[in-house]
Amino acid sequence: MRPSRRGLFAIGGGLIAAAGTTFAAHPASVGQEHEPRVEPANSIEAFWGVHQGGIVTPPQNHCYFAAFDLTTERRDDVVQLLRTWTDAAARLTSGQTAQPPVEAADAVAADSAEALGVAPSRLTLTFGFGPGLFMKQGKDRYGLAAARPDALVDLPRFNGDQLVAEKTGGDLSIQACADDPQVAFHAVRQLARLTYDTAQLRWAQTGFRSPPADGGTPRNLMGFKDGTQTPEQIDRAIWVGNEGPAWMRGGSYLVVRRIRMALEHWDRTEVSFQEQTIGRHKYSGAPLGRKGEFEPLSLERNDADENPIIPEGAHVRLANAAANGSADMLRRGYSYNDGVNFTAERWPPWRQGMEYDAGLLFICYQADPRTSFIRSFEKMAKFDMLNQFVTHTGGGLFACPGGVREGEFIGQDLFAQA
Amino acid sequence: MRPSRRGLFAIGGGLIAAAGTTFAAHPASVGQEHEPRVEPANSIEAFWGVHQGGIVTPPQNHCYFAAFDLTTERRDDVVQLLRTWTDAAARLTSGQTAQPPVEAADAVAADSAEALGVAPSRLTLTFGFGPGLFMKQGKDRYGLAAARPDALVDLPRFNGDQLVAEKTGGDLSIQACADDPQVAFHAVRQLARLTYDTAQLRWAQTGFRSPPADGGTPRNLMGFKDGTQTPEQIDRAIWVGNEGPAWMRGGSYLVVRRIRMALEHWDRTEVSFQEQTIGRHKYSGAPLGRKGEFEPLSLERNDADENPIIPEGAHVRLANAAANGSADMLRRGYSYNDGVNFTAERWPPWRQGMEYDAGLLFICYQADPRTSFIRSFEKMAKFDMLNQFVTHTGGGLFACPGGVREGEFIGQDLFAQA
Repeated sequence: MRPSRRGLFAIGGGLIAAAGTTFAAHPASVGQEHEPRVEPANSIEAFWGVHQGGIVTPPQNHCYFAAFDLTTERRDDVVQLLRTWTDAAARLTSGQTAQPPVEAADAVAADSAEALGVAPSRLTLTFGFGPGLFMKQGKDRYGLAAARPDALVDLPRFNGDQLVAEKTGGDLSIQACADDPQVAFHAVRQLARLTYDTAQLRWAQTGFRSPPADGGTPRNLMGFKDGTQTPEQIDRAIWVGNEGPAWMRGGSYLVVRRIRMALEHWDRTEVSFQEQTIGRHKYSGAPLGRKGEFEPLSLERNDADENPIIPEGAHVRLANAAANGSADMLRRGYSYNDGVNFTAERWPPWRQGMEYDAGLLFICYQADPRTSFIRSFEKMAKFDMLNQFVTHTGGGLFACPGGVREGEFIGQDLFAQA
Repeated sequence: MRPSRRGLFAIGGGLIAAAGTTFAAHPASVGQEHEPRVEPANSIEAFWGVHQGGIVTPPQNHCYFAAFDLTTERRDDVVQLLRTWTDAAARLTSGQTAQPPVEAADAVAADSAEALGVAPSRLTLTFGFGPGLFMKQGKDRYGLAAARPDALVDLPRFNGDQLVAEKTGGDLSIQACADDPQVAFHAVRQLARLTYDTAQLRWAQTGFRSPPADGGTPRNLMGFKDGTQTPEQIDRAIWVGNEGPAWMRGGSYLVVRRIRMALEHWDRTEVSFQEQTIGRHKYSGAPLGRKGEFEPLSLERNDADENPIIPEGAHVRLANAAANGSADMLRRGYSYNDGVNFTAERWPPWRQGMEYDAGLLFICYQADPRTSFIRSFEKMAKFDMLNQFVTHTGGGLFACPGGVREGEFIGQDLFAQA
């Protein structure tokens, strides 16, 4: 018997319903950020639609982010890959196996089975196109060079960047988010298997977030609440409109950065210094000079000595779109934790040794990275006081097309047009 | 305001209770393996007791395993470290900060705060002593050499071992398990901070397990149910009795192995071949030739061609204590997922490239590793058909002393005796 994932969890459905719901309280439901949400473990996020899932979907607790290099030279192979990925993603996000089950035992299975019986866990799969899809090493492999959006720039080198090639870039990306880590990884693994001869994994990164019991804003590994601020006009901030190519309408640009935190260093600093660095109070999450987490930043207010209450180099000031002259974006980051690695600290306590390889898998979505992430981070990379505690070690920029209707495939309009 | 972790989640307690319980159904509750359990998110595992927690505790969904090198030469420092770790562990497992909060903002905080407000998540902390505590590079640093238990051997080199020094060994170990990954890491991070000048992290590994919706046996990344078989006489199998030194009574020996799985290779094999390799049916988990997951292995039965139904080289046959002449042990493994790494495959599909660095963080507990893990794995390392899909890349052996009463510290009897 080869049950579908849905078949199996349907059996357990009664149990789930009886036992209650998951503890997955998601605070950052866009537009409802003050109302904690509790999602049932077996809930399913819609796959077909105007937008891809995984962008404004309330953040799930686990992420597996993967970037691929295309190894084929044939445009038809890329079309077939996207068709395969779209069909499989529709199945996977609804809790089914990646492909219809193969019944014969003497065949390679259509699914590696490690998610069998595990609840759908709100899986979303978000696909992105890197610059390499359009032009790679000066070569227009798929006849798409002319269709490359202006907004899909090559990310500039930022001050302090220590990007590792094996964790950077990629022709295609998949962001898999789910409330279960095995479900997220399972999905990418099936997609990679199905297109083994067309695309190969370039890098991948797991991430997690741990919502507080009261459903409030989760804390990152620096111990500060992360994700308090969301764009006021979310639709305008993240979705590409008529200013972009038709195939990007309803889509968004994804910037991902693997940011190592020098946690040993951070943990040895005074709380008041940490608060000056971030620009918020550590325990309440309130901006400096305020009481409540969701109060506005006091960017113009000075203290008794005529110094700004939120320092010029504080992270929240530099990250604030209005203050830095950039456009808003939606942050959707996860913590990552890859054990320990041999590291030479650039700051006190200067030492060489095994230190945490842990930090933030920063993910953001925006309508145009040139005016959002790039503009704001160029300034932050130079002046953010936080820089002495963080190092960007990888990442990329990907154009995530709009969502599709059943029967279509992700990026279909790009290939129809170009 | 610097609330304790308990203080914060107490506020949310009503919400949790109202919203129901977590979906953390734990199948492998020792002695009750057929009854799925649903644990409330805010439950707390006892710290003080005859045995350390985290051994027979029903497995939590996340693990952070850390091994430390002692950097001090002074015995008193080691005693102080163990006292500090014990006191902090008692606080942390009960949902408090590692140390009483420091009120002054112009001080380094007693806790890095990323677990503030997150439910206690059944955190357990299990401490182990590696050979290096007793003797390192021929040096008896702490006057404990004579007290080294016979059972705490140096693990032999096994056939196929490809252990990396930076992921192997250690003088001390902490296994942190919790239903939340941030809670598990947070605990180790606090303990590491408190003893920064006495011990340094040598290696660390995250792990996870994803219980099915129906509470059954979780599947590992090979897609097979993992953990079906538990020792029949659990107490006898894992706890050290009068045969060991007094300070190890009620304790257990921990073997941990970081086992990379060649998932790309595995995924290209036929299900029937996978089942012959494991010795179980993939979907039901039943032993070959049986219908039910929990039926006994048919080790003596042959098929129509007079071949054993469970092949001689099948994993379950070689792992079976009765069949391989070894003593039972309790497995407590987690999957791990460290993204992708450049890898040269030793088996088909032969290739070099980025492949998953994912697999099993194998953890087992036993009364004597010489007759349990070592005896059984020496045979398995040579003959297990699974070997062509797995590579041991790190690990260690640690003596985990018995539990302690409030006011004592872990390992106190060792230092009182030696």
